[in-house]
Amino acid sequence: MFFKRLKASGLGQNSYLLGCGEGLAVVIDPRRDIDEYLELARKNDLSIAYILETHRQEDFEFGSRTLAAMTGARIVTGTHELFGHSDIRLGDEKELKVGTTRIIALETPGHTPESVSYAVYPQDTKDKCWGVFTGDALFVSETGRTDLPDPDQTGENAGILYDSIHQKIAPLGDQALVLPAHGSGSACGGNISRRDDSTLGIEKETNLVFKVSRMEFVDHKMAEKLPRPPYFTHMERVNLMGGRPPGLPAEFRVLQPREFQKGMKDAVVIDCRLPDAFAAAHIPLSYNIWLKGLPAFGGWVADENTPIFLVLDEPDHLQEAVTSLSRIGLDKVMGMLAGGVESWREQGLPIYGLGTISAEECTHWMREHKVNVLDVRDDNEWAKEHIPGAIHTFVGYLEDSIPQLPKDSELVVHCSVGHRAGLAASILERNGFSKVYNLLGGLCAWKALGLPLEKTE
Amino acid sequence: MFFKRLKASGLGQNSYLLGCGEGLAVVIDPRRDIDEYLELARKNDLSIAYILETHRQEDFEFGSRTLAAMTGARIVTGTHELFGHSDIRLGDEKELKVGTTRIIALETPGHTPESVSYAVYPQDTKDKCWGVFTGDALFVSETGRTDLPDPDQTGENAGILYDSIHQKIAPLGDQALVLPAHGSGSACGGNISRRDDSTLGIEKETNLVFKVSRMEFVDHKMAEKLPRPPYFTHMERVNLMGGRPPGLPAEFRVLQPREFQKGMKDAVVIDCRLPDAFAAAHIPLSYNIWLKGLPAFGGWVADENTPIFLVLDEPDHLQEAVTSLSRIGLDKVMGMLAGGVESWREQGLPIYGLGTISAEECTHWMREHKVNVLDVRDDNEWAKEHIPGAIHTFVGYLEDSIPQLPKDSELVVHCSVGHRAGLAASILERNGFSKVYNLLGGLCAWKALGLPLEKTE
Amino acid sequence: MFFKRLKASGLGQNSYLLGCGEGLAVVIDPRRDIDEYLELARKNDLSIAYILETHRQEDFEFGSRTLAAMTGARIVTGTHELFGHSDIRLGDEKELKVGTTRIIALETPGHTPESVSYAVYPQDTKDKCWGVFTGDALFVSETGRTDLPDPDQTGENAGILYDSIHQKIAPLGDQALVLPAHGSGSACGGNISRRDDSTLGIEKETNLVFKVSRMEFVDHKMAEKLPRPPYFTHMERVNLMGGRPPGLPAEFRVLQPREFQKGMKDAVVIDCRLPDAFAAAHIPLSYNIWLKGLPAFGGWVADENTPIFLVLDEPDHLQEAVTSLSRIGLDKVMGMLAGGVESWREQGLPIYGLGTISAEECTHWMREHKVNVLDVRDDNEWAKEHIPGAIHTFVGYLEDSIPQLPKDSELVVHCSVGHRAGLAASILERNGFSKVYNLLGGLCAWKALGLPLEKTE
Amino acid sequence: MFFKRLKASGLGQNSYLLGCGEGLAVVIDPRRDIDEYLELARKNDLSIAYILETHRQEDFEFGSRTLAAMTGARIVTGTHELFGHSDIRLGDEKELKVGTTRIIALETPGHTPESVSYAVYPQDTKDKCWGVFTGDALFVSETGRTDLPDPDQTGENAGILYDSIHQKIAPLGDQALVLPAHGSGSACGGNISRRDDSTLGIEKETNLVFKVSRMEFVDHKMAEKLPRPPYFTHMERVNLMGGRPPGLPAEFRVLQPREFQKGMKDAVVIDCRLPDAFAAAHIPLSYNIWLKGLPAFGGWVADENTPIFLVLDEPDHLQEAVTSLSRIGLDKVMGMLAGGVESWREQGLPIYGLGTISAEECTHWMREHKVNVLDVRDDNEWAKEHIPGAIHTFVGYLEDSIPQLPKDSELVVHCSVGHRAGLAASILERNGFSKVYNLLGGLCAWKALGLPLEKTE
Repeated sequence: MFFKRLKASGLGQNSYLLGCGEGLAVVIDPRRDIDEYLELARKNDLSIAYILETHRQEDFEFGSRTLAAMTGARIVTGTHELFGHSDIRLGDEKELKVGTTRIIALETPGHTPESVSYAVYPQDTKDKCWGVFTGDALFVSETGRTDLPDPDQTGENAGILYDSIHQKIAPLGDQALVLPAHGSGSACGGNISRRDDSTLGIEKETNLVFKVSRMEFVDHKMAEKLPRPPYFTHMERVNLMGGRPPGLPAEFRVLQPREFQKGMKDAVVIDCRLPDAFAAAHIPLSYNIWLKGLPAFGGWVADENTPIFLVLDEPDHLQEAVTSLSRIGLDKVMGMLAGGVESWREQGLPIYGLGTISAEECTHWMREHKVNVLDVRDDNEWAKEHIPGAIHTFVGYLEDSIPQLPKDSELVVHCSVGHRAGLAASILERNGFSKVYNLLGGLCAWKALGLPLEKTE
Repeated sequence: MFFKRLKASGLGQNSYLLGCGEGLAVVIDPRRDIDEYLELARKNDLSIAYILETHRQEDFEFGSRTLAAMTGARIVTGTHELFGHSDIRLGDEKELKVGTTRIIALETPGHTPESVSYAVYPQDTKDKCWGVFTGDALFVSETGRTDLPDPDQTGENAGILYDSIHQKIAPLGDQALVLPAHGSGSACGGNISRRDDSTLGIEKETNLVFKVSRMEFVDHKMAEKLPRPPYFTHMERVNLMGGRPPGLPAEFRVLQPREFQKGMKDAVVIDCRLPDAFAAAHIPLSYNIWLKGLPAFGGWVADENTPIFLVLDEPDHLQEAVTSLSRIGLDKVMGMLAGGVESWREQGLPIYGLGTISAEECTHWMREHKVNVLDVRDDNEWAKEHIPGAIHTFVGYLEDSIPQLPKDSELVVHCSVGHRAGLAASILERNGFSKVYNLLGGLCAWKALGLPLEKTE
Repeated sequence: MFFKRLKASGLGQNSYLLGCGEGLAVVIDPRRDIDEYLELARKNDLSIAYILETHRQEDFEFGSRTLAAMTGARIVTGTHELFGHSDIRLGDEKELKVGTTRIIALETPGHTPESVSYAVYPQDTKDKCWGVFTGDALFVSETGRTDLPDPDQTGENAGILYDSIHQKIAPLGDQALVLPAHGSGSACGGNISRRDDSTLGIEKETNLVFKVSRMEFVDHKMAEKLPRPPYFTHMERVNLMGGRPPGLPAEFRVLQPREFQKGMKDAVVIDCRLPDAFAAAHIPLSYNIWLKGLPAFGGWVADENTPIFLVLDEPDHLQEAVTSLSRIGLDKVMGMLAGGVESWREQGLPIYGLGTISAEECTHWMREHKVNVLDVRDDNEWAKEHIPGAIHTFVGYLEDSIPQLPKDSELVVHCSVGHRAGLAASILERNGFSKVYNLLGGLCAWKALGLPLEKTE
Repeated sequence: MFFKRLKASGLGQNSYLLGCGEGLAVVIDPRRDIDEYLELARKNDLSIAYILETHRQEDFEFGSRTLAAMTGARIVTGTHELFGHSDIRLGDEKELKVGTTRIIALETPGHTPESVSYAVYPQDTKDKCWGVFTGDALFVSETGRTDLPDPDQTGENAGILYDSIHQKIAPLGDQALVLPAHGSGSACGGNISRRDDSTLGIEKETNLVFKVSRMEFVDHKMAEKLPRPPYFTHMERVNLMGGRPPGLPAEFRVLQPREFQKGMKDAVVIDCRLPDAFAAAHIPLSYNIWLKGLPAFGGWVADENTPIFLVLDEPDHLQEAVTSLSRIGLDKVMGMLAGGVESWREQGLPIYGLGTISAEECTHWMREHKVNVLDVRDDNEWAKEHIPGAIHTFVGYLEDSIPQLPKDSELVVHCSVGHRAGLAASILERNGFSKVYNLLGGLCAWKALGLPLEKTE
């Protein structure tokens, strides 16, 4: 029985390919770039017969429709109207038989109203559920956020989610594998475990939803403050129709420095190097988003109509960059800089630099009161612990909430390790700040040195 | 938490790489070709700190010693003397702490006296066992064979195994992942499921060891008749010392046809193409073992001192062929035929052919009484169902039990689908039979056509 | 200075990527599948600035237009109207400056009226021509065929070609690299050398066009009898417009045997295995074209509107198969058989077999007069040498010229080594012949054994 | 006729695989990591029959002996005693017949006394030389250095080389391909062209050796000042015996930061990132050698007995790093830092930073007289043009010639683009300088901005 979790790097998203006997297979929640599914199916002699959607995803574009057109597979969803078009609408507790495997749809609303889970019964496990595709209802050590459909109904939805998990999923038994739509790193859950493999029995021991009362769970969810990326709305819209075909850039150029300089005028430049390299030298006004951060943060600086120019560490990174952006609907990648920042410099074109600083040095500066510390982690992280005296704005909101400080004030930016701070530093530079330092190692280094922390009451 | 099952194609063997927190990792039952472990560790920023052996394996060579020398990892085993050298001998129920993860050794004899399982408790699952590396004690839907240490004690060992599973493994709880040393296709268990992912809760529902009494289990095991490959003894011997370094052939030549012809005189030629291609044209006296069959059947026609010459479908198959043979200790691969059988033929060198036959045609022939049917599947398969009127010898034993028939009698050979029959046909040809036909599609095709079967009482 | 020849396997076609200084590059005669150019340019920090076409190719689809749209490169041709659309029409002896490199167009008609060669002068070779892209005018050891535009004007065009080579190319000097559009295996030249690297000085020593008089050359060309594949016309038509975008199959399915059986009803099945495997067992009525033979022979059994179903040795061959067919305009690949012929057989579905025979055995059969020998090589090969008593039809013409023999007559088919004979055997089987044998090793084996040959006067 | 140039990235070294007919091939000047030759031979159905050495190389270790042992190939050299062991010693103008190809040895001393070139005559080029493997005698646009055997005899050897080229190589004809042992980037020739493909006819037009008199050539060579890397001596010694087997590190660890910190105490740390990333943050006292620079500069900071610890941008760079170092005999790579400098920082471990500066800013600083500019390019580059007022020491000699300046003086270091300056900056930091700035873009940027230059009289 072929089974494979396909993780989307940077996005924390899981899709799955499951062999169901007689050569038939199902794909659960496919991404827009469907080559991986096709290749796996081919190599394992599997015919993709059905595509199962757990819900209208918010954080990536579906590949359902493309995959269906290509393979003849039929799209399966729940019955809720928010699912848009699908070939088979499976009611609560209704069964789909694929090859020798039974798949039972379970309505599990709460994260979104239409959310469905799918419980799987291969022939040889008889009446024991082998595993359950939980979508964004139940994650490993976490549950789906409940603020997306309507922030004012976060609490009510939390209650609905609690019931879905306890009444629909929990009864499947301790032995069932938990197969969620997201893992660590996703924007769809606050604190998903970095452990991907779990079972209901393990979750019952460790997941908050099983440790507290319904009321406590509602309170917990209402206290959660998760960023709401601007591209979520776009995703929901296109996913209603099963997503769009993969965005092959119709135009894409390897640009020599002066051509790049011309092209970038009306576009956004994203420099995908790590923050240290960016700090040492970069193209003025470029954004710094490290490669693995593109799917999570690209959507904060560009939308589906923004022309994008890329600066990369090495040309082989292009494919990952384009795919990452495409997964969140950003298709207008116009070109990349030939030879990277090195060739730019060799032409004598203007470069900017930013400062870097270590945690220890930072404490010296703070002691001498000559520096502001800006924490750009999200609200939950800030609430849990932060540097005393720091100010706070989540990196995603920074461009709209530039600190009201003199543009020549010294500003140390930090996040947990330095990546998001790199983006923040580039945003501050774009907004005129001239003395920005990235605290490399971030709060991790700070804590490793035993420096003081405080938390929000 | 990084976790990955590494399956050895054709061997049905599983090894595992498990991240344990703080950048440390353990490898369970590593194979001789250790590059895959090293690369995975590197890509995931993991330091391999320990190597866990579940038992002295019989069907492949360990890479423990090499991996330990390379990485500085320490080898962990149980306390039984059959483990040979190891750095840490962990007593029953004793704990090894790696990073933030606790690993508990559980003595689970039965398959072999020294067999140990390892139960894993990552920090975040608290007192719930996350998963258990069961070695050859408990497989998915199957248990380890108990006839290896001493065929006369098969029953006694079966009882011991039953107790190990019920008393040591079962109590870990339904939620625990079952992580055995073998999957489908292994020579170490009769009927392992093709489903790799399982939990104790699922096994309790489906695995015979949990459905019958101790006495019934003993009877079942005593009735099992599994082939005992000749290379098992060699494996046990070298594995006592943690295996040998990967066997880079010291000499390896791409040979033009006439050089190949010279070299093969005192060697064994293995033709790794599929049986149909082999049937159409092959080098006289070559053995036919399809590529994926090398780890399971290579050890029946060669031992560690046999020079081997390879005929391949395409040169890219060489790496897999050499690795497969190396895993079972066959290192003396001397060369391959440049251009395959095609270049051989173009030189006008002698070729032999074998017949092929379809199931339907075979029934006609049988009706006219002009043909013998030889079934070369193993004893268990034969007992379960076979073609009425067929004779039976397991392919592994065929060279020592050539049918007592005139060399010019027509002989249809079959297995389940045609691979093992291909090897059998080549063995028969080597022994002088001139009219051998491979029933392509084997018993599968026979059954698909609804042709009659019988089973042994 | 980056320079690379990109050979299209099976097609014998060469395209080139040439770095010209200042980060700019040109592509010469790009194929439809342009990923390779894009990737090479990216990895080497090159901006593709121009695409040079030597002539309206006949044997593969151009990727010029797609590559131009993608990269912003401009398409460069000669001035002849047969070039269809292009951005820059370069007159005879006119120069294009790219980066620091000068490129001079030279009108070299003969193969086709519009044919142009491009002589290259990098900055550091000063007035010495570094190399010349000769298109189909001058090959290594051969010249382009002159029968394509109009078979009745083969001789006249041969004279024109002779002049082009002597007057335009030869004067570039012995030192110049010869960089033609085709190498060995192409359908565009009779006997191109398997040596790819050559210079004008070497050609002057070895190429017939430099060894004989104009009149002798014309006679030689008029005696040449090269097959004219049916897809040439389609190619010429689409290439007028710079080719079409790469044909991503809009539908493509991995089909289980019974679905494959349904689908193949109104389609053509191409079995891409080697002829021996095909001979042993294949799907009734399938064509046999070995993988590397698809670009040369696929166009003889299907056109751009034919739905195609593939049988492959292994799933990894799919990409090559689809690309090969796409290069000659065959885009309607509908699906492949999951598990290959093996899974087909396991279902008990009908299989056919063909015979194979060795050269030696064939002589015995011929001596006993019980067999017809059919040679399916092309007219030139036949004229040069053939088996006494054989009959002859080129494989491409076979379906339209089935031998007038009883359908149950024994028929040995051969080519040079056995590949084309495999296709011929499958065609004969489709046309009702029931006793067809492929002479494996073909004329090569025949000659290696010193068996008698004769040639056409 | 298979033919391929195999370039060693960073080393500027060329080896070649040449098919010679009848399935036989020769390898010319193989590197120590022989997998590439073996794989190419395999894929192209070639038996490697001979290994040709042009001379005892100085800048990389030979793989001849290993390749010979593996494949049974015989090692061919000239007759000079400096060749050490070889199987066949081919006298001047003596022929070796391989398959259908004739290879003629030509004694071409000058670079070294034993240097031999090999002229190649495939069957179909008859008496025209197809190409000549020139070793380090004749490069594209350059000739081999003549100072290596004895700096005092540079001029005498230059005369010998002039004669070798004019008397032995030139007569082969304009049409012959020039196939040297080095391309651009090599330490064995001063100014090799970045164009790899050349012919004798082109060289005669462009190469100084053909443009000047013997006396002028001698003067030119005596004026050349090329660095002499310390590892050259080691290479010459091991190459006498045909090189050593590829250095698989017997120990190699992925080290978490604190383990790395322990291990590096008695070792050399090489940080293989680009100089900007290094400047922003690095481990104190580490050397900075960019990945592609390892083969050229690794040998200046470590010898064959130095334990080496690596810091990489990404783990996938490890293979290239280890291979690059191995090619120049540095096998003691002990480990790499897990997670790179990022994980180091997250632990709060100490980091150092260096400054970067643009060319424009540098002019401001110079104008204000507050900075020293140190040029670390080689003597030839310096002589040709340099920044007025700069001081000069070649990076390779820097550790032994630290500038006599106060350790707190501001120091701008530059090379042509910034790579070698990165190494120089790290050397200066190791020697106590605290205010070092890398002029990113180097002299290239300086020139692009039209800033003033001067040259040595």
